[in-house]
Amino acid sequence: MAAIQRLAVRGAPLLGVVGGYGVALAAARAGGHEPTLRAEAARLADARPTAVNLGWAVRRVLAAALAAPAGGRAAAAVAEAHALAAQDAAASAAMATHGLALVPEDARVLTHCNTGRLVSAGAGTAFAVVDAAHRHGRLAHLWVDETRPLLQGGRLTAYEAAGAGMPHSVLADGAAGSLFAAGAVDLVVVGADRIAADGSVANKVGTYPLAVLAHHHGVPFVVVAPTSTLDLATAAGADIVVEQRAAAEVTAYAGVPVCPAGSAAYNPAFDVTPPQLLTALVTEVGVAQPVNHESVAALVALSIAACSR
Amino acid sequence: MAAIQRLAVRGAPLLGVVGGYGVALAAARAGGHEPTLRAEAARLADARPTAVNLGWAVRRVLAAALAAPAGGRAAAAVAEAHALAAQDAAASAAMATHGLALVPEDARVLTHCNTGRLVSAGAGTAFAVVDAAHRHGRLAHLWVDETRPLLQGGRLTAYEAAGAGMPHSVLADGAAGSLFAAGAVDLVVVGADRIAADGSVANKVGTYPLAVLAHHHGVPFVVVAPTSTLDLATAAGADIVVEQRAAAEVTAYAGVPVCPAGSAAYNPAFDVTPPQLLTALVTEVGVAQPVNHESVAALVALSIAACSR
Repeated sequence: MAAIQRLAVRGAPLLGVVGGYGVALAAARAGGHEPTLRAEAARLADARPTAVNLGWAVRRVLAAALAAPAGGRAAAAVAEAHALAAQDAAASAAMATHGLALVPEDARVLTHCNTGRLVSAGAGTAFAVVDAAHRHGRLAHLWVDETRPLLQGGRLTAYEAAGAGMPHSVLADGAAGSLFAAGAVDLVVVGADRIAADGSVANKVGTYPLAVLAHHHGVPFVVVAPTSTLDLATAAGADIVVEQRAAAEVTAYAGVPVCPAGSAAYNPAFDVTPPQLLTALVTEVGVAQPVNHESVAALVALSIAACSR
Repeated sequence: MAAIQRLAVRGAPLLGVVGGYGVALAAARAGGHEPTLRAEAARLADARPTAVNLGWAVRRVLAAALAAPAGGRAAAAVAEAHALAAQDAAASAAMATHGLALVPEDARVLTHCNTGRLVSAGAGTAFAVVDAAHRHGRLAHLWVDETRPLLQGGRLTAYEAAGAGMPHSVLADGAAGSLFAAGAVDLVVVGADRIAADGSVANKVGTYPLAVLAHHHGVPFVVVAPTSTLDLATAAGADIVVEQRAAAEVTAYAGVPVCPAGSAAYNPAFDVTPPQLLTALVTEVGVAQPVNHESVAALVALSIAACSR
């Protein structure tokens, strides 16, 4: 759980996978003792408030464990966590296929935060689409927002882009506006941490300004996320709880102060983009376009149908 | 000149003041030798391509020096540089007075980069307006964009705000969108490095995204700059040369790499905001509102009239 809170493990799909294995570990430690297992699962699910996949995966693996007799709970939990990881990898591949259809030839793609193999049991979410575009010869350039405060773009996405042999450049988040103004962005693709029933998308802070810029410049803005990110229990964007994180993430870097001592900071981990600013929402079961209450509900229905097959 | 290039000295008005004293220093060293003095002045003026005040001040002090006999050139240059610094301080006070009229009661003001005493011989440009609002009890909160890549907001503006006793918070540039979405910004005030004849504003990279966000949310966006920043020789925003700086400013921080080795970076020092996105342009001779070719020309005419009095 400490690894989740300090963000050693991060990214919505991977939080689900790790949450699932966390319950399996708790089941093994608890020896099948139900109250202990339930308490540990609740602690895991609450480790981060915004990423919906975490609670979803914890509940799913807990239910599988509790459905088994006390002596078989650890084994049942491990099996369910394995299944969850395998499904996550398959979902990445399906999102890449659906998303590829939205990428034009010679695309200059802008992305934010990190959404590849480091957040998933597969090729990721938004980055899986970029990777598919690259493999199909459609990627002219990948613009990588460094993604302050924790620099997941500069540190992680640049690493993944280099590993895949993609032409790419890192930029300060504020420089994205210059790219739009220069007509150098053909498509924005980002991931999501929670998507409300109306299609509002909570994602890494800095996503919403990109959506506004894309709208202002008529550039498509595409969100890529597994259906486990869809949260019909959250009606609208205003209902999404956004985690506020420590000032030190902004006022210091790697322990080096970058602001005067005692500076206060405003440091929300996520922002919320309303569905009107989204061109499309790509999931493993299909694409919502436009994104609204009806198209999100249709994706959830498809997801349930896929599960029951 | 090295100090100008590595940004030890920065901010449009202060670049002018320092350029002026740089010519005075060159005049003293050259012993009044005109070819040497002209060559040194040309090198100083070219040290940074975007800030118009630098070339303007260098030309003004050079002209004053060359108007004197060879033996009196150093003294004439120093006197003109002193006059330029005094005028800059007076301009700050006038901008603060004009700008204050645009600040509502209980204003939550967002600013970008650094525009206070550290960039001016006086109270600065945009920060002079914020400072006046604070002294008149109108400032509820100052939101300070950290301003990547060089963090002038977090390092310098936060220092100036703390020194003035202003309630303030530093934020990652990408978090400004969340503030707009929350209705927590009443006014944006920024400085400028060069303003074209059509009212297009070159300012620190990250300014244009704020202008688009302010426009999207109906929040006033005000630019504060001395008339020495107005450049009628540059017709439109597209004609402004934007300085591209080293990748290392993005890929490393304080010598610590923050991207994989060899990462390419897109690192424009400035961006250009079109006049349609400006609510007002505040100068020492008055306010242009709306900002367009005519209102900019009127400010220049007022400035010339003020000089000839």
